Amino acid sequence: MWVRPCSNVTSVTVAQLPGLNTLGISMARIDFAPWGINPPHTHPRATEVLTVVEGRLLVGFVTSNPENRLITQVLEKGDVFVFPQGLIHFQKNVGNGYALAIAGLSSQNPGVITIANVVFGSNPDIDVDVLAKAFQVDIKVVQQIQSKF
Amino acid sequence: MWVRPCSNVTSVTVAQLPGLNTLGISMARIDFAPWGINPPHTHPRATEVLTVVEGRLLVGFVTSNPENRLITQVLEKGDVFVFPQGLIHFQKNVGNGYALAIAGLSSQNPGVITIANVVFGSNPDIDVDVLAKAFQVDIKVVQQIQSKF
Amino acid sequence: MWVRPCSNVTSVTVAQLPGLNTLGISMARIDFAPWGINPPHTHPRATEVLTVVEGRLLVGFVTSNPENRLITQVLEKGDVFVFPQGLIHFQKNVGNGYALAIAGLSSQNPGVITIANVVFGSNPDIDVDVLAKAFQVDIKVVQQIQSKF
Amino acid sequence: MWVRPCSNVTSVTVAQLPGLNTLGISMARIDFAPWGINPPHTHPRATEVLTVVEGRLLVGFVTSNPENRLITQVLEKGDVFVFPQGLIHFQKNVGNGYALAIAGLSSQNPGVITIANVVFGSNPDIDVDVLAKAFQVDIKVVQQIQSKF
Amino acid sequence: MWVRPCSNVTSVTVAQLPGLNTLGISMARIDFAPWGINPPHTHPRATEVLTVVEGRLLVGFVTSNPENRLITQVLEKGDVFVFPQGLIHFQKNVGNGYALAIAGLSSQNPGVITIANVVFGSNPDIDVDVLAKAFQVDIKVVQQIQSKF
Amino acid sequence: MWVRPCSNVTSVTVAQLPGLNTLGISMARIDFAPWGINPPHTHPRATEVLTVVEGRLLVGFVTSNPENRLITQVLEKGDVFVFPQGLIHFQKNVGNGYALAIAGLSSQNPGVITIANVVFGSNPDIDVDVLAKAFQVDIKVVQQIQSKF
Repeated sequence: MWVRPCSNVTSVTVAQLPGLNTLGISMARIDFAPWGINPPHTHPRATEVLTVVEGRLLVGFVTSNPENRLITQVLEKGDVFVFPQGLIHFQKNVGNGYALAIAGLSSQNPGVITIANVVFGSNPDIDVDVLAKAFQVDIKVVQQIQSKF
Repeated sequence: MWVRPCSNVTSVTVAQLPGLNTLGISMARIDFAPWGINPPHTHPRATEVLTVVEGRLLVGFVTSNPENRLITQVLEKGDVFVFPQGLIHFQKNVGNGYALAIAGLSSQNPGVITIANVVFGSNPDIDVDVLAKAFQVDIKVVQQIQSKF
Repeated sequence: MWVRPCSNVTSVTVAQLPGLNTLGISMARIDFAPWGINPPHTHPRATEVLTVVEGRLLVGFVTSNPENRLITQVLEKGDVFVFPQGLIHFQKNVGNGYALAIAGLSSQNPGVITIANVVFGSNPDIDVDVLAKAFQVDIKVVQQIQSKF
Repeated sequence: MWVRPCSNVTSVTVAQLPGLNTLGISMARIDFAPWGINPPHTHPRATEVLTVVEGRLLVGFVTSNPENRLITQVLEKGDVFVFPQGLIHFQKNVGNGYALAIAGLSSQNPGVITIANVVFGSNPDIDVDVLAKAFQVDIKVVQQIQSKF
Repeated sequence: MWVRPCSNVTSVTVAQLPGLNTLGISMARIDFAPWGINPPHTHPRATEVLTVVEGRLLVGFVTSNPENRLITQVLEKGDVFVFPQGLIHFQKNVGNGYALAIAGLSSQNPGVITIANVVFGSNPDIDVDVLAKAFQVDIKVVQQIQSKF
Repeated sequence: MWVRPCSNVTSVTVAQLPGLNTLGISMARIDFAPWGINPPHTHPRATEVLTVVEGRLLVGFVTSNPENRLITQVLEKGDVFVFPQGLIHFQKNVGNGYALAIAGLSSQNPGVITIANVVFGSNPDIDVDVLAKAFQVDIKVVQQIQSKF
């Protein structure tokens, strides 16, 4: 069964494979349901290189201030793409069926920061005033989004 | 004159001071209007250590998955705090007047990713379907936030 | 068509994907004909983490002096294994059909040293006396092996 | 008394000198009997810089795939040479008497992989089929070489 | 009360803030009495970037052999300067009142070597003959300086 | 002919041997006249490991603040010693004749800061007031030492 938003990440980092300690690398596989997404996230300590093993993926990342440029590409089976360290990136299954990607990450402990969950679903919540000013919305909108996480 | 959200960051990185090249450090000063915030952001290539020179600041960062724990502290003049590399963090002026902080960053080219601007204000926009699923809101809400950036 | 010894390595390093520069990671896919091998080799500047996407592989590496211990494992589809930086390692397809593995490497420029080719097939040849003493064989045996490369 | 192949390496790494820990350097001296060799080997975690203190040495290393180029030089007393990290290299005493070299290595724990011993003398042995295909020789030749180690 | 030579350094390194461990950064504030100096010193494991928060400072560092070139600048409030890793540097308050500087350092454990104290005030003393030859003075002058520390 | 203070350092860094670039290591030989010294100095970017090839040396380094502890040892032929990165160290020939040491350094560009020359012989001179306060001597003594360099 697929959980929303319909992708599943299986990581092999030093937490799962202690032999990776000090070696500066880890791996992940990402399974996508049809039209499933891997939502915007960062790896605070790693660059990610990804290849599509099955299906077709739309992938993208956004550069840092001040450009905030979105770079996207549609990857077919066998294509390779790189998400530079710490940049916000995402993938979306845009083929007609299941999709599978394998990723290498340049740290044995890359970390994952899922932006929506960290910003609107932290424990405890971030001050609504900070979020309302940052996202330029009413406090009510912030509270509504926070209630989902 | 203060621009919204009422803080001003002056960075000295290798772009401003070429002599920093290869030396692994840079600096920033952050001026806060009363109740001004420095919105949630990350530095993809640096840890930040910050001290309050004037005023009182609420500072916080959120740990990575799966805990997403928010760590906050109120800093008085002279206090020091650290934001680990790549983690989402923010500051808010919670004193009665102007506030000033000085930060050191562990890279000559730390980068800044202002979360709201990168996620909802990239050029071009991120696919609304990706953002709607990630933030668990209607596409209309995504479009409304995107229109502010 | 498969070339002897019946495996094919497709690398994506900084030479193929310039965007990997400075990012400390690269990727490779290895296709194996039935019973094909990827002969003993090292990566002088990278650790390798490998996962089996299809088929079954015998994988192994040998530790350094003085133990020279051989560590092997049979990997099924979905298993992950790590070859620490610079150690001699190999893979062999031990399933009944084709096999496919994807590897991440902890450098944008990992390098590949295929032991047999470098030792017996360098340009020009290594002094036969050095090789005869090192491998404890007659000079004729050295020359016979050199003639194959 | 000299052991075959007639050179003796004395290493000072973090194992012998704990004060080297975290400092990224170690040292070795290599004593050569007349015409003695230091057989092909690699250091998986270090570059080596070597100087001849007494005698005359032929030194060489082989570059990685696909060139596999052999670089050699005859060093007189006082000459210096460098073996880049992880590349296969060797030395041979080509003077008329005893020779002595001192080497610095860019890790407190460089490791040594003596190619012949690791490939043909591991514990347990590497699968003969893998070695026969890699070195392009009969299984009998592989077994014969393995029996020497 | 000011201690001679009339500056006071308050450091926040991993010793004071354990959360800095592995993060590669630390901070210091330096308070200067009128005309106070921070005497020539080095940080063996860090580059330092410094900003003047109050007052006016003369700052300088000397390059390494063979140039030994002195680089100086007078910094006003808000100016920033960098002292590259391991180089000998100093500051002197050249304004009319109190001065304050904040520094970032590129290591959680930068270390401080105050040249005069280490050379003439070590425990036990460095051999006077070594110091007399190095500084090209009589042994009596060395002993006189040593007696101050 | 020996120049005062009667030792001669021959370095092989990336400046002399371009092949060392990016490889993180260099080498030096130090020849000592009888009772010659290698005066107190630091390497701002490298740890040094040293072995005595001929003669007998007194070697020492001083730890950083606040201990400023002097660590010394007399090394016989074949002994090895380590000077941690950036610490002030020196050697003195305490045998009856010529002495020779070989050193490895953990950077292709280690740098050398000869303390006396940098502090009292920079170009231009460091402010005498700074040096008088730092070394706790009269300005006349500072000027006298400066005049020697």
